[in-house]
Amino acid sequence: MTEPVAAAHDPRSKHSVSGAPAMGNLLARVGGPEDVRALDKRELPVLCAEVRQFILDTVLKTGGHLGSNLGIVETTVALHYCFDFLRDRLVFDVSHQVYPHKILTGRGAQLHTIRQTDGISGFCHIDESPYDMFTAGHAGTAISSALGLRCGFDHAPAPKPARTPEEEGSPWVVSLVGDAGLGAGVAFEGLNHAGDLDKSRYMVVLNDNEWSISKSVGALAKYLSRIRTSPLVHGATKKIEDLIAAIPMIGGKVVGKAHELGNVLRHLAVPGHIFEELGITYVGPIDGHDVVGLVDTLQRLKKLDGVVLLHLLTQKGKGYDAAKNDPERGHAAKPTAKPSKETHKIEVRTDQNGTHAVPRKSISFTQSFAKHLKRCAERDPRVVAITAAMPSGTGLVEFSELFPTRFYDTGITEQHAVAFCGGLARAGARPVAAIYSTFLQRGYDQVFQEVALQRLPVVFALDRGGLVGQDGPTHNGVFDLAYLRTFPGFVLCSPRDDAEMGLLLDFALRHDGPVGIRYPRANCEEALPEEPREAIALGRGEWLQRGERVALVGYGSMTQEALGAARRIEQEFGFRPSVVNARFAKPVDGALLAELAGSHRLLVTIEDHAIAGGFGSACLEELNTRGASAELLRIGVPDQFIEHMNSPAEQHAALGMDAAGIARRVAERIR
Amino acid sequence: MTEPVAAAHDPRSKHSVSGAPAMGNLLARVGGPEDVRALDKRELPVLCAEVRQFILDTVLKTGGHLGSNLGIVETTVALHYCFDFLRDRLVFDVSHQVYPHKILTGRGAQLHTIRQTDGISGFCHIDESPYDMFTAGHAGTAISSALGLRCGFDHAPAPKPARTPEEEGSPWVVSLVGDAGLGAGVAFEGLNHAGDLDKSRYMVVLNDNEWSISKSVGALAKYLSRIRTSPLVHGATKKIEDLIAAIPMIGGKVVGKAHELGNVLRHLAVPGHIFEELGITYVGPIDGHDVVGLVDTLQRLKKLDGVVLLHLLTQKGKGYDAAKNDPERGHAAKPTAKPSKETHKIEVRTDQNGTHAVPRKSISFTQSFAKHLKRCAERDPRVVAITAAMPSGTGLVEFSELFPTRFYDTGITEQHAVAFCGGLARAGARPVAAIYSTFLQRGYDQVFQEVALQRLPVVFALDRGGLVGQDGPTHNGVFDLAYLRTFPGFVLCSPRDDAEMGLLLDFALRHDGPVGIRYPRANCEEALPEEPREAIALGRGEWLQRGERVALVGYGSMTQEALGAARRIEQEFGFRPSVVNARFAKPVDGALLAELAGSHRLLVTIEDHAIAGGFGSACLEELNTRGASAELLRIGVPDQFIEHMNSPAEQHAALGMDAAGIARRVAERIR
Repeated sequence: MTEPVAAAHDPRSKHSVSGAPAMGNLLARVGGPEDVRALDKRELPVLCAEVRQFILDTVLKTGGHLGSNLGIVETTVALHYCFDFLRDRLVFDVSHQVYPHKILTGRGAQLHTIRQTDGISGFCHIDESPYDMFTAGHAGTAISSALGLRCGFDHAPAPKPARTPEEEGSPWVVSLVGDAGLGAGVAFEGLNHAGDLDKSRYMVVLNDNEWSISKSVGALAKYLSRIRTSPLVHGATKKIEDLIAAIPMIGGKVVGKAHELGNVLRHLAVPGHIFEELGITYVGPIDGHDVVGLVDTLQRLKKLDGVVLLHLLTQKGKGYDAAKNDPERGHAAKPTAKPSKETHKIEVRTDQNGTHAVPRKSISFTQSFAKHLKRCAERDPRVVAITAAMPSGTGLVEFSELFPTRFYDTGITEQHAVAFCGGLARAGARPVAAIYSTFLQRGYDQVFQEVALQRLPVVFALDRGGLVGQDGPTHNGVFDLAYLRTFPGFVLCSPRDDAEMGLLLDFALRHDGPVGIRYPRANCEEALPEEPREAIALGRGEWLQRGERVALVGYGSMTQEALGAARRIEQEFGFRPSVVNARFAKPVDGALLAELAGSHRLLVTIEDHAIAGGFGSACLEELNTRGASAELLRIGVPDQFIEHMNSPAEQHAALGMDAAGIARRVAERIR
Repeated sequence: MTEPVAAAHDPRSKHSVSGAPAMGNLLARVGGPEDVRALDKRELPVLCAEVRQFILDTVLKTGGHLGSNLGIVETTVALHYCFDFLRDRLVFDVSHQVYPHKILTGRGAQLHTIRQTDGISGFCHIDESPYDMFTAGHAGTAISSALGLRCGFDHAPAPKPARTPEEEGSPWVVSLVGDAGLGAGVAFEGLNHAGDLDKSRYMVVLNDNEWSISKSVGALAKYLSRIRTSPLVHGATKKIEDLIAAIPMIGGKVVGKAHELGNVLRHLAVPGHIFEELGITYVGPIDGHDVVGLVDTLQRLKKLDGVVLLHLLTQKGKGYDAAKNDPERGHAAKPTAKPSKETHKIEVRTDQNGTHAVPRKSISFTQSFAKHLKRCAERDPRVVAITAAMPSGTGLVEFSELFPTRFYDTGITEQHAVAFCGGLARAGARPVAAIYSTFLQRGYDQVFQEVALQRLPVVFALDRGGLVGQDGPTHNGVFDLAYLRTFPGFVLCSPRDDAEMGLLLDFALRHDGPVGIRYPRANCEEALPEEPREAIALGRGEWLQRGERVALVGYGSMTQEALGAARRIEQEFGFRPSVVNARFAKPVDGALLAELAGSHRLLVTIEDHAIAGGFGSACLEELNTRGASAELLRIGVPDQFIEHMNSPAEQHAALGMDAAGIARRVAERIR
């Protein structure tokens, strides 16, 4: 059975407090939220300043999400001041903005270990603190989860007994959602249900910083932006009311119909009427950096009945100009001490025949994808690119500048993005949807109905396919082969390097049906300008090294680990294993597998994907269908949620999936 | 590779026109939409009456969706009158309301074959007509698909050249969406993007009949309902404007600030301001049964720029009182000639030992689930039930009446429903989410992040797991094992009959983690009151018959086919195969599989699920992990989208998955 890898999340684990920056005087006395509540309200601005400084001192050294955390300091302090979240419940959406919460809930001393091997998580994590309700990372669901919690307290006892008459009844449940997350369909579904249920003691705090990871997109974002400027309209409205009331005869007649005009006047007085129309009491917009004002507002709101949405205006990167002025970069800061991984590095490698060293430039798979997509778009005007709020992460910024009319950023709406691609393809365009493997899960049903069932030529560029390092289990893209290969007619492939990325993209854009091209958060060798490569044929793998006894079958970037393992095996055991680049997970190269099975004692499949339902499983199925018997060792991600480490490479090593681990496991089998 | 089973959809196939009811005089002359456009506008009401009559005459005989189709007659006629949908494009959401469209696009003579083996589909189907854009069945995506089509025409040529100056430019793209589908998150995502893109020649027609399948739920539904009564507010608004303007001095001052008051006054004049705030021009509400008025409105709207939402008020079942008065029943009518499948039937069966016949009552798996859930809820007050707009289909109507405060219908919002369950479970409740296998695909990412990753005890009752008969490929629930078993810690099981349903539900509600209980659209034997059964242990299967040479391993209801196949094999070959009820697909019973592999020449896995990634694949993985070699034949749904037939049983027979087919395929192997 499956046990989560939780050990890394014990705050008492390897990292000591010694690595942490110094805390301010007030913050140093805060061991937990009860210490926040013991402060005088007038001390809170000082506490906020100290929390902000501590985040800056920590994150600029260790890396992590910066801007969003600086923007949420006052909100977090005010929430902990007004609620006891061991009885009440606080649910963070996405939860990359959870650092102030971690600091206030006893994890400040570990903050410098964030996202690192054996350190604390960069997100909420259920195994880390009783104050963390859900391990999170995908946006938009907090409204639903929190509503479930609120309703759950109607059916199960509160987590802590009420101590005051005010606390009697259901605990409060508060969700904290960003403006971009609000554009996700599931957030709308949650609001729609919340407004309908009309539960009291349920609050949505909308942290509106006008930025998601890139700039918020969508009509709702424009609407929120109009609310920001609404005091003008608001004032004008008041004037109309006064005017009407001030004219006794006529005014009296109108006011007499006030109940009939109730809905109308409501729109005049309340800027957030989209929410009001959904049955939610809208309060705002409020300055999200005035902590005393926030406390006052929250204490007033605790007396309201029904569902409340509190709209806060905040600045991403508040208090740190570098993050504020470049919110996208400030989203996830890289540690200043380390060199950037994105820049080209000169690496020395041994070529396929292992005979001589060739210096090669290194390039990230994301950059490789972007480069080849640009080439394809220059050649074919039907090629369009789609992202769901990840233009930078998927490498599409340059594309968006070169081809502004052929680039669509839909916001955090993978469902829509995928269905939208189906429509584009049906009209004759050639859409390429660049979506992280883990986020495509959000559009799974649309991949099924709107694309696969229609046999439409949509290319899915599945970035971050595999383990992702510091982001942890919410972001690992290790299920895509399992969830996509069950769809009839779906082609799944993965390049082993930059040159093959180009070939597979060319192939996919020629193929008359859906194709998923999967690649990891990793670097690969940059293609040489005139490098001869065999052309791609559907479902055909590639020999990398013909050998004996053991055949290593790598999928995508794992072919590099396979080659490394082969070298180690050759050195240790004196025979040369065969190495194959599988290239396709659907259809798998059955003829090649059968050939390998007939000529080798052991087949080894190597994939950066869950072992349950993945590439190795597809190979087992194919061999079974062909009646080919073979001893097959499947190497992949074990059936556990894999916690964060410094890098995918560290995770692979820990799980025995790197060259050394593969060689060791093969050795155990053949001994 | 995968080829869709398309032959059944050739309108020229086996069914002849002879079985069709007679058409009215006008309708008989309509061979296609061009004939509709050739009519005088004043003839359209007659055409509508004839279409309505033809639907009634057909569907009451053959079965199918009745109410929704009677409600959409005028809308469909008006749309085909105002657009040429070989150049312009029409996208149906869900598309169970597509019958008038089928009649007008040359498929009237086949309508009586609808949903039947070799007949036409009950939904839009891309292989059936150039007028069908997408094969559909899941709600909420048409807005996105249509927006994709509209944008796609910016990158690819129109499907047909413009013939008039008016037609120059992009073709129009119209999506037709119901009020319940509008509550799906993906619909909101689509509107949000559409309002942002602000494309012209893109229209959403909202068919608001105040009913989804059950009564529409959610705050948005209440909002639409308020719009229905908005003329009153509308009138009052006009009065305010007149009043202000009529007071020269003061009024002039106010009017002078009109630009500043623009937003305010807009809300006064327009009832659909939620849509207006999203950048969409709202028009309505309009009587959706006034075909001439509809034509006039559509022709006026064709002159508008930007995204248009046309809000139509219709009556489900219009023109047929029985359907109108019971919309849920009218949703999918059963043919009057055939007896209902839902009623108890007396069947004669042979018991496990094959020695004597026992008369048993038959009960649907859905009824069985509902019965046992009720029992569990009576015992444990923490048990709550959740449905996403399917209270009747999932058998939960009685539960909702018995436990109204412990029942949640979220509307067509599977994403929210699943995340909501995560919250309920986190608070200590024991949520049971009854969702069709195919619709749970919509909540896939929430199953991952909000439930599985949190290790929360949510029970998923996966109804319609397997092939579903008449609804066809959009509704087949044949991917759930593949998409769920890749999640660590997820338990997957399936009962073989009513008694085991109870045991598995008891087990699931005791288990401290997520459990999927899967069952098909089929009947099973009703449990006898005091039937002894062994208790359920996690991951343990059940021997049904100990035999030799061949071991048949059935999953869920397919154990019945396995038993039937065993009898046939025994009769034909004179040996008695072993039969095992696998019960769990995750974790599979590895010890039992190894035992079978060691004592039988051939293992046969039998599942009502896609063969790619399913139960058989899980068995292959388990045997591989254990190093157990076995000849294994996997029987399941082949890697194709399976088209509709009269019943799941017919589909199983056609695919060699019934007792006879299994016996035949085993015989081929052992000969």
